[in-house]
Amino acid sequence: MRGTFEEGLEYDSRLGAEGTFLNGVYEEGTIRYGEMAHGFPEKKQTMINVANGKKIILKLDNEIFSMQAGNILDYKRSINMREGVLKRSLIWQSPMGKQIRLETERLVCFQRRNLAAVSYKVTPLDFDGTIIVLSEIDGDTKYALGEKDPRIGSGLEGGSFFTIDAVVDSETAALFQRTKRTGITVACVVKGTIKTECSYTSDKYICRDRVGFEYKVTGQKGKAIEYTKFIVYEASEESCSSLMSYTLKVLEGAMERGYDGLAREQYEFLSDYWYRSDIEIKGDIALQQAIRFNLFHLLQSVGRDGKTNICAKGLTGEGYEGHYFWDTEMYIIPAFLYSSPGISRKLLEYRYGTLDKARERAREMSHKKGALFPWRTINGEECSGYFPAGTAQYHINAAIAHAIKKYMEATQDEEFLLSCGAEMLFETARLWADLGYFNACKDGRFCINCVTGPDEYTAIVNNNFYTNIMAKDNLEIAYNTAVWMKECHRPEYDRLAAKIGLEPEETELWKRAADNMYLPYSEKLGIHMQDDTFLDKKVWDFKNVPKENYPLLLHYHPLVIYRHQVCKQADVVLALFLLGHKFSQEQKRRDYEYYEKVTTHDSSLSASIFSIVANDIGYHEEAYDYFIKTARMDLDDYQGNTHHGVHTANMAGSWMCIVNGFAGMRVYDDILSFKPYIHPDWESYSFRIAYRGRLIQLTISSSETSYELLEGNELEITHRDKKYRLKDRLTLE
Amino acid sequence: MRGTFEEGLEYDSRLGAEGTFLNGVYEEGTIRYGEMAHGFPEKKQTMINVANGKKIILKLDNEIFSMQAGNILDYKRSINMREGVLKRSLIWQSPMGKQIRLETERLVCFQRRNLAAVSYKVTPLDFDGTIIVLSEIDGDTKYALGEKDPRIGSGLEGGSFFTIDAVVDSETAALFQRTKRTGITVACVVKGTIKTECSYTSDKYICRDRVGFEYKVTGQKGKAIEYTKFIVYEASEESCSSLMSYTLKVLEGAMERGYDGLAREQYEFLSDYWYRSDIEIKGDIALQQAIRFNLFHLLQSVGRDGKTNICAKGLTGEGYEGHYFWDTEMYIIPAFLYSSPGISRKLLEYRYGTLDKARERAREMSHKKGALFPWRTINGEECSGYFPAGTAQYHINAAIAHAIKKYMEATQDEEFLLSCGAEMLFETARLWADLGYFNACKDGRFCINCVTGPDEYTAIVNNNFYTNIMAKDNLEIAYNTAVWMKECHRPEYDRLAAKIGLEPEETELWKRAADNMYLPYSEKLGIHMQDDTFLDKKVWDFKNVPKENYPLLLHYHPLVIYRHQVCKQADVVLALFLLGHKFSQEQKRRDYEYYEKVTTHDSSLSASIFSIVANDIGYHEEAYDYFIKTARMDLDDYQGNTHHGVHTANMAGSWMCIVNGFAGMRVYDDILSFKPYIHPDWESYSFRIAYRGRLIQLTISSSETSYELLEGNELEITHRDKKYRLKDRLTLE
Repeated sequence: MRGTFEEGLEYDSRLGAEGTFLNGVYEEGTIRYGEMAHGFPEKKQTMINVANGKKIILKLDNEIFSMQAGNILDYKRSINMREGVLKRSLIWQSPMGKQIRLETERLVCFQRRNLAAVSYKVTPLDFDGTIIVLSEIDGDTKYALGEKDPRIGSGLEGGSFFTIDAVVDSETAALFQRTKRTGITVACVVKGTIKTECSYTSDKYICRDRVGFEYKVTGQKGKAIEYTKFIVYEASEESCSSLMSYTLKVLEGAMERGYDGLAREQYEFLSDYWYRSDIEIKGDIALQQAIRFNLFHLLQSVGRDGKTNICAKGLTGEGYEGHYFWDTEMYIIPAFLYSSPGISRKLLEYRYGTLDKARERAREMSHKKGALFPWRTINGEECSGYFPAGTAQYHINAAIAHAIKKYMEATQDEEFLLSCGAEMLFETARLWADLGYFNACKDGRFCINCVTGPDEYTAIVNNNFYTNIMAKDNLEIAYNTAVWMKECHRPEYDRLAAKIGLEPEETELWKRAADNMYLPYSEKLGIHMQDDTFLDKKVWDFKNVPKENYPLLLHYHPLVIYRHQVCKQADVVLALFLLGHKFSQEQKRRDYEYYEKVTTHDSSLSASIFSIVANDIGYHEEAYDYFIKTARMDLDDYQGNTHHGVHTANMAGSWMCIVNGFAGMRVYDDILSFKPYIHPDWESYSFRIAYRGRLIQLTISSSETSYELLEGNELEITHRDKKYRLKDRLTLE
Repeated sequence: MRGTFEEGLEYDSRLGAEGTFLNGVYEEGTIRYGEMAHGFPEKKQTMINVANGKKIILKLDNEIFSMQAGNILDYKRSINMREGVLKRSLIWQSPMGKQIRLETERLVCFQRRNLAAVSYKVTPLDFDGTIIVLSEIDGDTKYALGEKDPRIGSGLEGGSFFTIDAVVDSETAALFQRTKRTGITVACVVKGTIKTECSYTSDKYICRDRVGFEYKVTGQKGKAIEYTKFIVYEASEESCSSLMSYTLKVLEGAMERGYDGLAREQYEFLSDYWYRSDIEIKGDIALQQAIRFNLFHLLQSVGRDGKTNICAKGLTGEGYEGHYFWDTEMYIIPAFLYSSPGISRKLLEYRYGTLDKARERAREMSHKKGALFPWRTINGEECSGYFPAGTAQYHINAAIAHAIKKYMEATQDEEFLLSCGAEMLFETARLWADLGYFNACKDGRFCINCVTGPDEYTAIVNNNFYTNIMAKDNLEIAYNTAVWMKECHRPEYDRLAAKIGLEPEETELWKRAADNMYLPYSEKLGIHMQDDTFLDKKVWDFKNVPKENYPLLLHYHPLVIYRHQVCKQADVVLALFLLGHKFSQEQKRRDYEYYEKVTTHDSSLSASIFSIVANDIGYHEEAYDYFIKTARMDLDDYQGNTHHGVHTANMAGSWMCIVNGFAGMRVYDDILSFKPYIHPDWESYSFRIAYRGRLIQLTISSSETSYELLEGNELEITHRDKKYRLKDRLTLE
């Protein structure tokens, strides 16, 4: 539920498009191509903007309250991230001169599924007279789509979303909407209560896509009118009546607790979240605000039911059509993993639920074995409409394997590995084995051709370094998991091998492919080559290209971009972070320096990674600059497109910047290690890490780092490359 | 005007879709993309299927004549390529048992623009009774589009084509159709005359999109009814009335000459064409038929007015939406150049007419200078909807420069060079200079990155050998032309340089780029590499891929194809032909052998080139096999898609197979040379060559080659690497 006003705002996609999104609720459309080819996805998926249930229109006699008319004499609006409540208070003078005070509060419950509540209080300050409160559900939602920007979507040809029924009685208003192709019915059901000393009449209305209640109050100066509204959504393929009975139950529970009760629940839920997740930065209010804003948004958007995931823009906008990307595995899962590992598991369970579709996709792409996860999707089917920066990004498979590895490291959740993880590891490994080959032209090394790495400004290349090293890791994890299962869980291994038809020689092939993986390196420059031919290209003319031509993707044909050494985002540099123990510090420095010069950071996924690696190699000022861009990207609209929605991966990146970047946290070879650094502008910073049943609090100041074991048994950790046993508390330099 | 029956046929795109196409008459639509990016063309162009003016419906009382009903007792249908007339004669027994003889003839005039005539003769053989002849214009044309094949089109979203007016009086019927976006009005106007001893009444009718005449004849056994129909089309942006008055004049002229007069004109025109163009193969009727069929089709489809060009499918079908490709420069121009050089000039003039649009496209593609010709177009604007196999094929520019070079060699038409040719050569050279760069990683050689060569099964590569060597040639031609103009035509040079803002150092850059062009070569294999990384890829699994999976583009995702060593068509091998003097015979053999093994010939442009090069290197049996596939591709439907239209480039390729292939004709270093070979199955073959004002007849038998100078002054030629002076006749071994 976007933070727009209850009364609405004239439609403007930049200022305040209405938006109410339910994770996983989408419609399909037809993807059209200039020229079609085999294997191009034909079905698009688009998250839909459901009915606006929070709408409250206020009239003073015939004057309609609007922030864009009359005068605002006093105004305050805040999102309280500790409470999880959006508040607004203001004094408004109408064009005719009447003054009112308006106080609203709103919350979307974290614990009660799809429930929101609004507390709306209006007080006439200087007049007696009719005050009308219209509380409605507005099904006439508009789309921001249609802006000419490839990062949004292109509409829903063939699909649609429309109101099928609206009902209202004296207590309850309900609107039912349905998607044409996916056959999902979305119910929005509302109940409200009014409280005032003034006399009033109430009525109900249905008008096309709008349904609601009208309260006509004989307002008296100084006497408040308080209206509380409870809104619940549910979406399913079931009938309207079953949706109705379910939502009514939710509403009854809500009414019982009341607005204040729900607010207390919200506070309690968030208390726990912040206890485990908060990062405190003393000495920099702007960064402190930003990081909490980011962590709050992540929680609001992430799917926690194992059936949904997290959209690139969360549930805050229509950018990227509500699709799930590798952002989940590379950014979101790590950020939740050390505070709320259960959420990370749910995100991986989502992938497991789509494994069959990934297998089908692999067959469509002519792979005899294995699974190919989609570059972008909601329901698990590939729906990227531009394969050079879509399907060609095979590294999505490695991202999922990597996330499983990190999840296992941090949780030792063997049940997950045996029930879901191993199968995904094996199927992704199989795909790499089928995709690449032992290339005689490269001394028999295992090569992977015609893929696109994370850097989307270079496409369809051979031996993308990042892809190859991550594929190697994927193959190794799968191999090691197979060996471990054969030793320790033979029945489970046999069952899984039978299920997926795994031949004994396949695991050996994984090992051989991993051992012989080709990793392009330039001896001349002493750096890893982004791919076989990246260094052959002309360096982008950074000097002469004007600032307004960035992001390049909006101003240059892909061929022009592909022809140059220019990166949209971290590619080799991302590998330096993820598999940092495989490189010397000197090597990291050379790679970082080379690629830093040719990277535009046109992708929001870039700055956080550069910040982390810069800290790793001792470039702390650069690290700090990248961190500021990361942390405040949406608050300060650094990318210029926050109106499409927030950048969730980057938000998670800001957590990583502190924990992996400044504090230098890594887990290599099963040991939790830190190399803390504190920026001179900060007094101290602290955070908590959940790791293998422990909860550890770190507090880092310029003089020392303290480790405190809050939960769990003692643990060996590494601090600045030296091992320590953490029992209760350790204070180190 | 497709060869469908006058009475029509139930709609079936494979058996006999109606089709009447006017070269250059098209509608625009919107190209939609899965994901849009900067510089993607947004306007598509589609050749439209105009009203069917040849329609004649025959009724015996209430029975409608159809080849699909009743019985055919005798039947003959032929296209006479000597006369340019399509004939049909048959005896039909109606379901009710009545017999008629039907004799039709039809011609589309070569000399009178957009004029066609039908002679239609029906004789009742065994009955007296009512015979109705309906002669109409049918504007309700259907499209074959919509088949799921990327080689057709995808419909016309946003555009349309519809009837705006229909008029008929006792003598003339007219139907006017208009395109919505391009604003072109197409008039189809018809006059007819009936001749019979039987009594008849005539009437006229208009019914929606159909307009025409009804002749009701009191038929008598044995007495013929002869109906002659003249049909004229015209398309322009002018009003219906001005189109009407123009077309009426054409019709008057036609009526004056009568059907027989037009047939005589047609014969005379073709006599001249065949005199200069015919290839005679004695000893193989099937090949003889095929080559004449091909030459006849080329003449029917080629634009001869300097404003139109030749569609990939000619005017015979809707495949590739009626677009013009490099087919023109690489195949069609060479085939006409040595018989009807005036046609080749007109095709180049068409390109010159689109030069401004090519300049605009170059700017869109971020090139500061030069012109980039469109990969596919009708009106000169790029409209390829899949850039990896469209816009990325920069070699279109070199194809145009190459055609200018060949045209100049064969005609010494300096007026053309000064008025059009030089400007195109300079602007294409400028584009290469801007596109490539001197690459320190390749010893400072001039490299061209991220293009697609002729082989569309490999896309967006660095240093495509074909592209680079052809770009080198383009740069050299431009440089040499600039030097020559500066010496011999200084005022024209200065004028042109001022017009296009050519700096003196630019021509020097062309020379330097050409001299330093990087041409990838594998020392290990002793072959030219198709591009920097082609040989790094896995060889396609030819053994295990079943026949039904070809053409690959219909069965594999582009990434799967791009990942392998597999070629759709001649790429390196095409350069071996076009610039054959740059390679040793041994080199050609090595290249040919390597690439022949990995080429599927899924493109119809491939077989002819392989045939020519095979002959060059002495692989005559392979050359013969490829030639048969070339020559009879459409007659025997080797590609399985002749119903989309004929393959005009391949048809021209069949001419090249004989002249450049078997007879080994080349022009290198300004000398016309031959190395004739005759296949043992043939008695002899002969053809004529127009070259620099001469007309030379070659007749090749197994024992000797005779050269006869039919027109023009004596000339030095080369026969099997030895020079001879051709005065009247030379007979050599």
